[in-house]
Amino acid sequence: MARRFKKRSKKAGLPPGALVHIGDRLTEKVGMEVVHYNEAVLEKKDLKSLAESAPYLKQADAVTWIQIEGLHDVDKLAKLETIFGIHPLILEDIFNSDQRPKMEDLGDYIYIVLKMFNGQNGDNVKIAFEQISIILGKNYVISIMEKENAVLKPIRDRLETGAGKIRKLGADYLAYAIIDAVVDNYFIVLEQFGEKMESMEEASLKNPTPETLHAIQDIKGEMIFLRRSVWPLREAVGSLARSESPLIQDTTVAYLKDIYDHTVQVIDNIETLRDMLSGMLDIYLSSLANRTNKVMKTLTVIATIFIPLTFIVGVYGMNFKYMPELEWRWGYFAVWGVILIVAAGMLIYFRKRKW
Amino acid sequence: MARRFKKRSKKAGLPPGALVHIGDRLTEKVGMEVVHYNEAVLEKKDLKSLAESAPYLKQADAVTWIQIEGLHDVDKLAKLETIFGIHPLILEDIFNSDQRPKMEDLGDYIYIVLKMFNGQNGDNVKIAFEQISIILGKNYVISIMEKENAVLKPIRDRLETGAGKIRKLGADYLAYAIIDAVVDNYFIVLEQFGEKMESMEEASLKNPTPETLHAIQDIKGEMIFLRRSVWPLREAVGSLARSESPLIQDTTVAYLKDIYDHTVQVIDNIETLRDMLSGMLDIYLSSLANRTNKVMKTLTVIATIFIPLTFIVGVYGMNFKYMPELEWRWGYFAVWGVILIVAAGMLIYFRKRKW
Amino acid sequence: MARRFKKRSKKAGLPPGALVHIGDRLTEKVGMEVVHYNEAVLEKKDLKSLAESAPYLKQADAVTWIQIEGLHDVDKLAKLETIFGIHPLILEDIFNSDQRPKMEDLGDYIYIVLKMFNGQNGDNVKIAFEQISIILGKNYVISIMEKENAVLKPIRDRLETGAGKIRKLGADYLAYAIIDAVVDNYFIVLEQFGEKMESMEEASLKNPTPETLHAIQDIKGEMIFLRRSVWPLREAVGSLARSESPLIQDTTVAYLKDIYDHTVQVIDNIETLRDMLSGMLDIYLSSLANRTNKVMKTLTVIATIFIPLTFIVGVYGMNFKYMPELEWRWGYFAVWGVILIVAAGMLIYFRKRKW
Amino acid sequence: MARRFKKRSKKAGLPPGALVHIGDRLTEKVGMEVVHYNEAVLEKKDLKSLAESAPYLKQADAVTWIQIEGLHDVDKLAKLETIFGIHPLILEDIFNSDQRPKMEDLGDYIYIVLKMFNGQNGDNVKIAFEQISIILGKNYVISIMEKENAVLKPIRDRLETGAGKIRKLGADYLAYAIIDAVVDNYFIVLEQFGEKMESMEEASLKNPTPETLHAIQDIKGEMIFLRRSVWPLREAVGSLARSESPLIQDTTVAYLKDIYDHTVQVIDNIETLRDMLSGMLDIYLSSLANRTNKVMKTLTVIATIFIPLTFIVGVYGMNFKYMPELEWRWGYFAVWGVILIVAAGMLIYFRKRKW
Amino acid sequence: MARRFKKRSKKAGLPPGALVHIGDRLTEKVGMEVVHYNEAVLEKKDLKSLAESAPYLKQADAVTWIQIEGLHDVDKLAKLETIFGIHPLILEDIFNSDQRPKMEDLGDYIYIVLKMFNGQNGDNVKIAFEQISIILGKNYVISIMEKENAVLKPIRDRLETGAGKIRKLGADYLAYAIIDAVVDNYFIVLEQFGEKMESMEEASLKNPTPETLHAIQDIKGEMIFLRRSVWPLREAVGSLARSESPLIQDTTVAYLKDIYDHTVQVIDNIETLRDMLSGMLDIYLSSLANRTNKVMKTLTVIATIFIPLTFIVGVYGMNFKYMPELEWRWGYFAVWGVILIVAAGMLIYFRKRKW
Repeated sequence: MARRFKKRSKKAGLPPGALVHIGDRLTEKVGMEVVHYNEAVLEKKDLKSLAESAPYLKQADAVTWIQIEGLHDVDKLAKLETIFGIHPLILEDIFNSDQRPKMEDLGDYIYIVLKMFNGQNGDNVKIAFEQISIILGKNYVISIMEKENAVLKPIRDRLETGAGKIRKLGADYLAYAIIDAVVDNYFIVLEQFGEKMESMEEASLKNPTPETLHAIQDIKGEMIFLRRSVWPLREAVGSLARSESPLIQDTTVAYLKDIYDHTVQVIDNIETLRDMLSGMLDIYLSSLANRTNKVMKTLTVIATIFIPLTFIVGVYGMNFKYMPELEWRWGYFAVWGVILIVAAGMLIYFRKRKW
Repeated sequence: MARRFKKRSKKAGLPPGALVHIGDRLTEKVGMEVVHYNEAVLEKKDLKSLAESAPYLKQADAVTWIQIEGLHDVDKLAKLETIFGIHPLILEDIFNSDQRPKMEDLGDYIYIVLKMFNGQNGDNVKIAFEQISIILGKNYVISIMEKENAVLKPIRDRLETGAGKIRKLGADYLAYAIIDAVVDNYFIVLEQFGEKMESMEEASLKNPTPETLHAIQDIKGEMIFLRRSVWPLREAVGSLARSESPLIQDTTVAYLKDIYDHTVQVIDNIETLRDMLSGMLDIYLSSLANRTNKVMKTLTVIATIFIPLTFIVGVYGMNFKYMPELEWRWGYFAVWGVILIVAAGMLIYFRKRKW
Repeated sequence: MARRFKKRSKKAGLPPGALVHIGDRLTEKVGMEVVHYNEAVLEKKDLKSLAESAPYLKQADAVTWIQIEGLHDVDKLAKLETIFGIHPLILEDIFNSDQRPKMEDLGDYIYIVLKMFNGQNGDNVKIAFEQISIILGKNYVISIMEKENAVLKPIRDRLETGAGKIRKLGADYLAYAIIDAVVDNYFIVLEQFGEKMESMEEASLKNPTPETLHAIQDIKGEMIFLRRSVWPLREAVGSLARSESPLIQDTTVAYLKDIYDHTVQVIDNIETLRDMLSGMLDIYLSSLANRTNKVMKTLTVIATIFIPLTFIVGVYGMNFKYMPELEWRWGYFAVWGVILIVAAGMLIYFRKRKW
Repeated sequence: MARRFKKRSKKAGLPPGALVHIGDRLTEKVGMEVVHYNEAVLEKKDLKSLAESAPYLKQADAVTWIQIEGLHDVDKLAKLETIFGIHPLILEDIFNSDQRPKMEDLGDYIYIVLKMFNGQNGDNVKIAFEQISIILGKNYVISIMEKENAVLKPIRDRLETGAGKIRKLGADYLAYAIIDAVVDNYFIVLEQFGEKMESMEEASLKNPTPETLHAIQDIKGEMIFLRRSVWPLREAVGSLARSESPLIQDTTVAYLKDIYDHTVQVIDNIETLRDMLSGMLDIYLSSLANRTNKVMKTLTVIATIFIPLTFIVGVYGMNFKYMPELEWRWGYFAVWGVILIVAAGMLIYFRKRKW
Repeated sequence: MARRFKKRSKKAGLPPGALVHIGDRLTEKVGMEVVHYNEAVLEKKDLKSLAESAPYLKQADAVTWIQIEGLHDVDKLAKLETIFGIHPLILEDIFNSDQRPKMEDLGDYIYIVLKMFNGQNGDNVKIAFEQISIILGKNYVISIMEKENAVLKPIRDRLETGAGKIRKLGADYLAYAIIDAVVDNYFIVLEQFGEKMESMEEASLKNPTPETLHAIQDIKGEMIFLRRSVWPLREAVGSLARSESPLIQDTTVAYLKDIYDHTVQVIDNIETLRDMLSGMLDIYLSSLANRTNKVMKTLTVIATIFIPLTFIVGVYGMNFKYMPELEWRWGYFAVWGVILIVAAGMLIYFRKRKW
C-alpha cells in the first residue's frame, strides 16, 4: 500500500513551482492529438508540439480537444503556460501524479484532476490507476493522462460518428463526458472487487490460511485508496455543478449533478464493500478459532478414550507376586470386557455432547 | 451482498441519457393502469399505451393515477418524455433500478424514487426489494414499479371505497399515501428481522457453528443495505416536506412531516438491530471460546488423573531383580490404595476449582 | 430487545391518521382526573368523559390539569380533537406508544412526548418504560400516560399542599414540573444500572460464564434503548426552551434550560455506563482466555512431569534377555533416584517460569 | 466508576430549586475568607457570615475575592441569593457537586463551574476531584470549593506579594487566574497518569494478570471521566472568551483565549492517553495469547518426544512367547539407539521450526 | 509516548505570561543570524543580540530574515517584546515547545507555530521533532527553532543564489517558503514510516513476537502524534490563506492554498498508514492464533497416533496366566501388523482433513 506515497520526497528542497514529474513513467513517448469539431465538421491531427494547436483555438464556433498521453516530457508540456496561460502551480499539479481529485476555477479556465482506474486482470487485486487532468477553457478541453488509455475511446468514437448530443454541445459537455467515462469505469472496478470478495468469503469460511488474511488486507488497502480518491472527487464534481463559472452552461449543470449522484453511488458501494471486508475478517478469525476447536476435540476424544484404557492394561502389567486376578481363568477376557465398556461409555458421552 | 452492485457496467461507454434498463427483469409484461377520480366519481382503465392517458389529464378537477408495473419495455415508457415532458435524465433514473432514494423538484413535476421491500418468506434472510418511482404533477401521479406488488393495493381499495380523505384531497396526498404505504412496509420487514435475530441469538449462545456466523454476516449485509436505502429516504422526505413547490399543498406538509418521523423511527430500529447484531457476534465468539475451554477441561481432567496413575502402575511393571515391594503380600492392594487416593485427591482438587 | 419494535405492523395498510392503540394494554380502565387550581383555590375531580372538563377551561385565571391514565379506550380519548382542537396526527402519535421523544409547537398548544422509566425490581435488567404525552395549552395541561404511575405523585402533593412556587405559576410551569419529574427519574434508573454493573464486573472477572455475557448484552440493549430515548429528549427540551411560543413565559425558560442541563447529564451518565459495559466485555473475554490458559498450564505441568517418567519406567518394563541394569542390586532404587531428580528439575523449571 | 453518578436520586421528587447538597461532605467546617485589594492596598479577613462582606463591595475601585470552602452548610450559603442576587437555580447548581463544567452569563454576574483535580498519591489511580464554582461580578469574585485546596494558594501568594499583574487588573483577571490555576493542574494529573501507564505497559507485556486488566479498565474509567469534564470546560472557556459581557475587559480576552488553547491541549493529551490505553489492551490480550502459545509449545515438545518413545519401550514390554528381538544380545542397546535417534530427530525438527 | 506531555507541570503555579522554557534543551548556544535581502542585494550577519537587527528593519524595500536557533536563553529572546512589539503571551508560546500548530493574526504581525520532523535514523521509530515559530511582520520574518536544523538550508541557498522567485517577492513569500519546506519534510518522514511498516507487516505474518506488537504500538503512538500535529496545521494554513491580513499579498495566497493541499495530502497519507497499522494488528493476532493452531495440530497428530498404539502394546504387556494370543507363533508379528494398519489409517485420516 505504501507504494502510493513514495514519491514526493523527490521534490523536497526544490523551490515551489518547480516542474518535476512525480510518479512512474508509464509510457515511452508523449502522444499529443487534437480533435477539432463542431456540429458540421470534425478534424483530427497528431501534434508534434503544443504550438501547432494554436490555430484551432482561434475558431470560436468549434471545440478543440487536445489529448496528451504521457507526462514525463516536462519541457514539451511546459508550453501549456505560454500558449494557454496555465498557472505554474497548476502545471506543477499536472506533473505530480500524486494529487487528490479536485477542481479549481481559475477564471479563464477550470482545472479538474481525477484518478482513473483500470479493470484488473487475473488474480491481482492491486488496482492499476493513473491520474487524468482536464483543463476546460472557453472553446477547448485539454485532457492529460499518464499513458494511452482505452477509457476515452468511446468518446472519440461518439465524436467521429456524431452519435448523441456531443457534437452539438460545447466544450463543457465534452469535459463532462470525459469525467462521466472515468466515473462509469469505477463501477466496473467495484464489480470486479465484489466478485473477488465473494470467492474470498468462501475461502475464509472453508479454508482460512494466512494467505486469505493477507488478501483481505490487500483488498482493504485498495478500498481505502479508492475511497480516498472518490470522496474528494465528489466534492470536486459538486463544486463544479454549483460553480457559477461562465464556462459551464446551464444545460450542462443537470449532467454534472447526474455525475454527482453517481459518485455518491460509488461511495455507497465502496462503503458496502468495506463492511463486507470487515465481516470477512470476523469470519476468518472465527473459522480459525473453529478449526482449533476441532483439532482440540480430536485430541481430546482420542486421549480421553485411550489414556484410561492404557492405565487399565498397565495395572495388569505389574509384576506383583500376589495379584489374584492374574490367576483367574477368564481374567484376560474380563479386562477386555472392562475396556470395551469404558470405551463405549466414553463414545456415548461424546456423542451426547455432539462433539 | 455484492449482487446489489453488479449492474452498472452495462452502461459504461454509452452516451449519458441512453435509456437502458439496469436491473433484473422482474415481470414478463409491462402492466399499465389508470385510475381517474375526484370526490364524486372514479374510473379505472387498463392502458395499452401511455398516449391513452392524455384525455384524463385535461380534467383539472380530478386526479389521474397512472400505475406502471414492469420496466424493461424501454420504448413504451420512453413516451413519458413526450407526453408528460419528463427530462431524459429522469427517465434514465427510472430505468436504472440501482438508484439511491431521492426527490427532485423539476418545477412542473416532482420526481421521487424509493426502495420498496417485501416481506420475506421462510428462512431466507435476503430481502426482496424493488425500486418505485413516483412522478407527482399538477393533477396526476405516475407510479412506476419493477413488477406487480401488493403494497399499493390498500390505496387502490381506499380509493374505490372512498374510505378516509384520499378522494377529497389532491394528487400530492395520493403521492404521500404511496410513500406512506412503502415506509409502513419497512416496519414489517424490520419486525421479521427482529424475530429472526432473536432465534439466532439463542443459537449463537447454545450451538455456535460457522453457519450461525454466516447467517449473522448475511443479516448484517441486509441491514447495511436497508440502512443505505433509508438514510437518503429521510433526506428525500425531509426536503419534500420543506420544499415550497406549488405542487404540494400546506395541508399535505403535516402528513409528510409525519412520514419523516417514521423514517427516523425506521433508522432508529435499524441501528438497534445493528447493535444487536454486533452483540451477537460477541456472543458467538465467546461461546466458541467457552466451548474450546470446556473441551480443554475434559482433556485436562482425564489426562491429569490417569497420566500419574499410569506412571505408578508402570513403576511396578519394571523387571528389576530386586524390587522389595513386589514380594510383599499386600503390595498389589497397597498400589490400588495409592491409586484411589491419588484419583480422589485430583477429583477433589478439580471440584474445588469448579471445573 | 426486539420486543421494542414489534408494534407498528398493526397499522400497515390503514389510512394515515387512523386511531389505533399501538402498544401493550398496561391498565384495565382508563382513569381521568382533573385538578383545577390557582394560588387561592384547588379543586379535584374524577372525570367520566372529557366533556366534563370544559367548564374549567373557561376560567382564565386558573390552571386546569387533566391527567389521563390508560390509552386503549380510543373512542373516549378521540374527543380531544373536538374539545381541545388537537390535530388528528397528534392524536395518532398519542395512541402510538412507540414514539421518539419530541416536542411540536402547533400554535394553540404544544405537544410533548417523552418516555418514562420505572425503577426495576430485583435482578431483572429490563427497564419498564411507558410513554407520556403532555399537551400544554394556554391555561391547561393534559398529561396522558399508559397506566397509573407514581412518578407524578409528588407534583400532585405539592399542588395540594401549595409547597414551592407551583401554585403561583402558570400552566407552562406545571408542564415543566412534569418533565422535570420524569427526567429526575432517569437518574434513579441509571443508578440502579450502575450498581448492577458493578456486581457484574466482579462476576466477569472471577467467574465468567455465558450467562454473564448474556447479562452484559442485555444491559447493553437497555442502554441503547435508553440512549435512543434521551438523545431526542434533549433536542425536544432544547427546542422547548428556545421556542418563542407565547405559551411559555420568560421565567419558565430558565427552568427549561435547567432540565436541558439535566438531560445532558443523563446522556453523559449513559455514555459512561456504555463505556463501562464495553470494558466489561473485554474483561469477560480476557478472563475466559485466562481460564483456558490456567487449564492448559495444569495439563502441561502434569503431562510434562509424568510423561517422561512413564517412559523411564517403561524402559525397565522391557523383557530383553540382556538388560544389565535389571540385575543390579540397587537398580530399582537408582531408577527412583532418577525419577525424583527429573520430577524435581521440572518443578523448579515451572516455578522459575512462574506458572 | 459508578460512584460518580450515585448522587442525584436524593433530589428526585423535590421541587426544583430546592437547595440540597448533593455530593460527599468533604470538610467539617465551612471556611469563608475575604481578600480585598487594589494596586495600593490588600486586606484579608475571615468571615463568619456572608453579610460581613457587604461593606467591601461598595468600594468600586477595589476587587473583593470571597473564598468559600465547604458546601454542606446550605443555610449559610443561601444568603448568596439575598446579598449578591444570585438566581436560585444557580444556587442549586453550586450545591449540586455533580455539575458539568459550564459558564452562564446572567448579566450582572457570570457563573462558571469547573472540576478541580488533585494529584493522586501512591498507586491509587482514582482521581480525587472536586467542584469549584466561580461567580464573577462587577468588582468581586466568589470562589466556592468543596473543601480547602492548595491549588489556589499561589494566587493568594501573588496577591499578597503583588507579583505579576494581578493586583493591577480587575476582577475578571482574578477569575481568569483561578481558572488558569485549575487547568494547569490538569497537566500534572495527566503526567501522573502518563507515568503510571508506562509502568503498566511494561507489566502488560511481561506479566499479564487479570489485575493488570483491571487496572487498565480503572484508568480507562478515569480518563473517560476526565474527558467528560474537560470537553464542556473547553466550550465554557470558549464562550467566556467570546462573550461580550461588560464584566470581561478586552485585555482579559487574550488571556482567556490562552486558557482555551490549554484546554485543547489537555484534550489532546487525554486522547493520546486513551489511545495508549487501547493499545495496552491489545498488548495485554496478545501477551496472554502468547503465553498460552508458549505453554502449548512446552506441552507439545515434551509429549511429542516422549509419547512415541513410550510406545517403543511398550513394544518390548509385551509378553509374547516368540519375540525374536528379546533374545538378541544387543537388543536392549539397539532400542536405546532407536530412542536416542528418534528424540534427536524430534529436537532438530523443533529447533528448525524455531519453537 | 508519554514523554510528549511531561513538560507543563514546571509552569503550574507561576503567573501567566511568565517566560519559562518548557521542553528539552536541544542545543548549547542560542544562534542568531540575520539575512537581509531584496532583488538586488543580500547581506548576512551573525547577531550577538536582537538589538543589532534594528537598523535592517528600517529599510522598507528589503526583507529581513532573523533566524534564531535555541530557546533556552530566555533573557536574550525576551527582547522580542521591546524591539518587535511581540505580545507577552506569544512570547510564552514561543518558549513553550509543547504548542499545537496554530496561526494568530495580531494585526502588526502574524504568529505561526508548527512542528518540524526530522528523518529518523536506523531502526528507531521515534520521530525527532521540534517546534518552529514564525513571526511574519511587514518587512521581516523571524524564525525560531529549538536547535540548528538542515531543513531551512535550501531556502538560505536559494536566497544566496537568487534561484526561483524568492528574492523578488516579499516577506510573506519567505514565510510561505519556510512552511513549505517544513511540510515537504513530512512526506519524507511518512515515506520512512511506510517502508518500516512494510517490513513489519512481513514480520507480523511470518514471525509474530511480542516485540513485533510492541513495535506496532510504538509506530501507532508516533502516528497519533503526527496526526495531532498535522490536523491543526491544516487549520492554521487554511486560515492563513483565508486571512485578509494586509501582510499577505494576493499572489502569495495561491501558494498558501497549495500548502493547504499538501497538508490535506499528508493527513490522507497518515490515515492510510493508520489503517495499515490496524490491519497489521489483525495480521499479528491471527498469525499468533495460526501458530497456536499449528502447535496444537502437531501435538494432536503425534498423540492421536501413538496413544492408541501404546494401549495396544500395553495390552500384551499384561501378565495374565491365560492370554491365548501370547502363545501364538505369529502373535508378535500380528500385533505389529495391527499397529501399522492403525497408524496408516490415522495418517490417511489426517491427510484427508488437510492437517
